[in-house]
Amino acid sequence: MKKSNISYCDWQESKKSEKEIKKINKSKLYRYEGNFRWRNIKKEQYKPYGKTWKDIIRQTLIGNHGETTKFHVRYFEIAPGGFSSFEKHRHEHVVIGIRGKGICVVEKREFEIGFLDVLYIKPNEPHQLKNPFNKTFGFFCIVNAKRDRPKEISP
Amino acid sequence: MKKSNISYCDWQESKKSEKEIKKINKSKLYRYEGNFRWRNIKKEQYKPYGKTWKDIIRQTLIGNHGETTKFHVRYFEIAPGGFSSFEKHRHEHVVIGIRGKGICVVEKREFEIGFLDVLYIKPNEPHQLKNPFNKTFGFFCIVNAKRDRPKEISP
Repeated sequence: MKKSNISYCDWQESKKSEKEIKKINKSKLYRYEGNFRWRNIKKEQYKPYGKTWKDIIRQTLIGNHGETTKFHVRYFEIAPGGFSSFEKHRHEHVVIGIRGKGICVVEKREFEIGFLDVLYIKPNEPHQLKNPFNKTFGFFCIVNAKRDRPKEISP
Repeated sequence: MKKSNISYCDWQESKKSEKEIKKINKSKLYRYEGNFRWRNIKKEQYKPYGKTWKDIIRQTLIGNHGETTKFHVRYFEIAPGGFSSFEKHRHEHVVIGIRGKGICVVEKREFEIGFLDVLYIKPNEPHQLKNPFNKTFGFFCIVNAKRDRPKEISP
């Protein structure tokens, strides 16, 4: 599995040229294989421990196979006890609960996110995702394709 | 329920000004209430019979409550025997199966879409969604916020 220190709110853009992207851009089905895995989609594990985040795994469904959408669709899992950095940025998040449940801190509010709950996080809203429960928390996170670098917020 | 003759690939944009949108843009949870309904989300029923489409219901989760995302997230249901127009447009679709199963025709290929299958439809690819099965077919459809008007294709 590829290791990376990219944060949950990953802001990096593709290094492919527009011409290259157009060439590889194809309609495509990513078949769900059960157990929260999709055919031909890589599972990327972050470092098991970061200073400000822990135990997050990402699968990029839409966004790095040459798609030209103005958005990317990723599926994340946070293991029990795991969490993302508390941070903010101009780009928005849409979080859709898929597996288990977790908590999303938004400014000073806490939302419990379960199956098919849909959370919109507006621009520049400090936020953090965490899993204080004893089962894996899995969710889709949809973001703009072009996005700014997150700023970490001191606790 | 609001009736409308907008197609599945609805291209219309919000009539709200940027200032109005900024004012009403808030982080918000749309709690899933079971039975494929979300709190505070309207169900919009299309005309039961159109010339080229039939029995489609839409719930707009992200896109008409002041969100500034470059994308909209909608949940559609196609009743048994229902279908969308066969059409094409420059904007892409991402379809994620949620309830039951259905068929997506893309150019000359047919894909069966079930739970959590993810289909990317590239720009200008003729496509149609249909439900030849005996249970409701429900799916998320994510599209760019700014999108062009679909062109219907003769069968």
